[in-house]
Amino acid sequence: MKVDGKAYRTIWLNPDGWSVEIIDQTKFPYAFETATLRTLEDAAHAIRVMQVRGAPLIGATAAYGLCLALREDASDQRLAEAYEVLHATRPTAINLRWALERMRKLLLPLPEADRLSVAYREAAAICEEDVEINRSIGAHGLTLIEKIAATKKPGEPVNVLTHCNAGWLATVDWGTATAPVYTAHDRGIDVHVWVDETRPRNQGGFLTAWELFHHGVPHTVIVDNAGGHLMQRGQVDLVITGTDRTTLRGDVCNKIGTYLKALSAKDNSVPFYVALPSPTIDFSIEDGIREIPIEERSNREVTHITGRGEDGEIRTIEVVSSGSGAANPAFDVTPARLVSGLITERGVLEASREAILSAFPERMSPAA
Amino acid sequence: MKVDGKAYRTIWLNPDGWSVEIIDQTKFPYAFETATLRTLEDAAHAIRVMQVRGAPLIGATAAYGLCLALREDASDQRLAEAYEVLHATRPTAINLRWALERMRKLLLPLPEADRLSVAYREAAAICEEDVEINRSIGAHGLTLIEKIAATKKPGEPVNVLTHCNAGWLATVDWGTATAPVYTAHDRGIDVHVWVDETRPRNQGGFLTAWELFHHGVPHTVIVDNAGGHLMQRGQVDLVITGTDRTTLRGDVCNKIGTYLKALSAKDNSVPFYVALPSPTIDFSIEDGIREIPIEERSNREVTHITGRGEDGEIRTIEVVSSGSGAANPAFDVTPARLVSGLITERGVLEASREAILSAFPERMSPAA
Repeated sequence: MKVDGKAYRTIWLNPDGWSVEIIDQTKFPYAFETATLRTLEDAAHAIRVMQVRGAPLIGATAAYGLCLALREDASDQRLAEAYEVLHATRPTAINLRWALERMRKLLLPLPEADRLSVAYREAAAICEEDVEINRSIGAHGLTLIEKIAATKKPGEPVNVLTHCNAGWLATVDWGTATAPVYTAHDRGIDVHVWVDETRPRNQGGFLTAWELFHHGVPHTVIVDNAGGHLMQRGQVDLVITGTDRTTLRGDVCNKIGTYLKALSAKDNSVPFYVALPSPTIDFSIEDGIREIPIEERSNREVTHITGRGEDGEIRTIEVVSSGSGAANPAFDVTPARLVSGLITERGVLEASREAILSAFPERMSPAA
Repeated sequence: MKVDGKAYRTIWLNPDGWSVEIIDQTKFPYAFETATLRTLEDAAHAIRVMQVRGAPLIGATAAYGLCLALREDASDQRLAEAYEVLHATRPTAINLRWALERMRKLLLPLPEADRLSVAYREAAAICEEDVEINRSIGAHGLTLIEKIAATKKPGEPVNVLTHCNAGWLATVDWGTATAPVYTAHDRGIDVHVWVDETRPRNQGGFLTAWELFHHGVPHTVIVDNAGGHLMQRGQVDLVITGTDRTTLRGDVCNKIGTYLKALSAKDNSVPFYVALPSPTIDFSIEDGIREIPIEERSNREVTHITGRGEDGEIRTIEVVSSGSGAANPAFDVTPARLVSGLITERGVLEASREAILSAFPERMSPAA
């Protein structure tokens, strides 16, 4: 997507043909800087300190990390070492493991001399595939926005509400929940986005707001409490969120608070869609509420918040009365009954076992 | 309620018999300090800068403000002047006007020489009546908590979720939503409160957490996004919130985000109660969503937040990406169909026109 008129991805190969450039997301939303990855350790560091974040982008960075590791030594041992170093950066990230496995399976059978060029080709392919999936999500989601736009008077925007950051910064490009929005905006459809700030980590206020602003999409940040009221007053036409994990029957595990927005969408007959690349569908589980364990993160994310002070310094302040404890469940589960549809790279599906299996039949084969 | 073992109200007459002491709420949650009101201007200042806040407490402070004004001059002119000064501090506060009218009606017909003592007596009566109303709300709400406690195993607390601060700091004592909690706690029932932080002004994390902590009630602060998830997992037994305005049919206008908690309570069969003194019932309106205009407050409340920095200084930081706009509706309306009951000083009522009229028949008389 664009940053003040210039097109970017979150990761790309430099013109030298070997070093890798990323947007350094630790500087957000206060500065837009890129960083150059020249070694395995640079790539591992970038994942570890969250210079890159979001499942698809972490996978792509790990793939390029292997390339950088193989540059001077493409031996089996170096490959195994690099795999371990990268995997250890965020051991629970499924996409990280998936990208590393894919690279290893491809490279290990090859003669050492061929590995480097194949590795770079494959890392590029991983990036392109992510972009292609998100572009498809955008194209399918566009139809939903177009339908609503057709009912609007001139000058009336289509109002989309989103939660957290399922934006291009979490992917290689386009994002998932934002892909339909960028696609519609780029085609000249008048879209306006309500951005939930998304406490406690404020990914909405910091990241989604940043990317919409710099691409030029009209948007307004609101506290997480406000969405239900806006829906009651007819000010939301459509909700689109991302998801970290989707069950076979269409339950959606996403950032904490998503469920509350799904409830208010239902109560006000506002369509509630979830955008996802199909790899996030977990075909092994059905009931998200019973089967998905919810990560409990540090209480300090609730009791403290970091932002820019009036003196320009980045500061952390306490926002809970001292002495009081806090709890911090990071995700919640929205049951399929509240989901109007899943926007995937293969089309907009009903959130049901039947629809998911019929769109992705190969995923149920024993080899999947 | 208690502050570290010592009983307090939010406002009281000093032993000198004329000066008025208040808890200075502008220092919360970082310091507990009181301030002495000795003049009309002290009282007006306290209301204006929100050293006192919450409808009942503002009313009580205004009543005492009139007393202070009349000390050296109890003339009609002084009374009229003082009324104007106090009314201008927060012109939209209904309770402020109500307390001032009540005092003026009582004092104006009296000889000047009698006014001061009657004024002090009436101000004290206003305070006592507020305490009595809240004590009744606590007693009626207690029955709800007792019923749940009876179903618990030893060591299992009754989990109450609340939103914003309808606590004793907003009243003279007890609070409204918190009155049942304090009553239960003081009787030895094991109660635990989930405290919504309540963005954007964080009255939950700052004030409700402060008062529960200092009275010794177990509690945990959560982001506003988390309540639905906790209800899904059976971790909330009961929701009790306050209300700024209640319609004749039982629609409830309260701090933004209340509606989302009511929806998730309904979806998970968690009882959702609203505690209110009957003066907040507006018998002139039925449909809260159509008839109650919602205050849009400054965007800066969303984009900036104030708290204590790691150096101990109170600092304001920016928590939204620069350049992005924000919106800040301050209240939302929870329709009566989502309200399990209204906890009033006359008992727990169904949220319906019939139940409200039958509990407060005198309010429908033409003279009301």
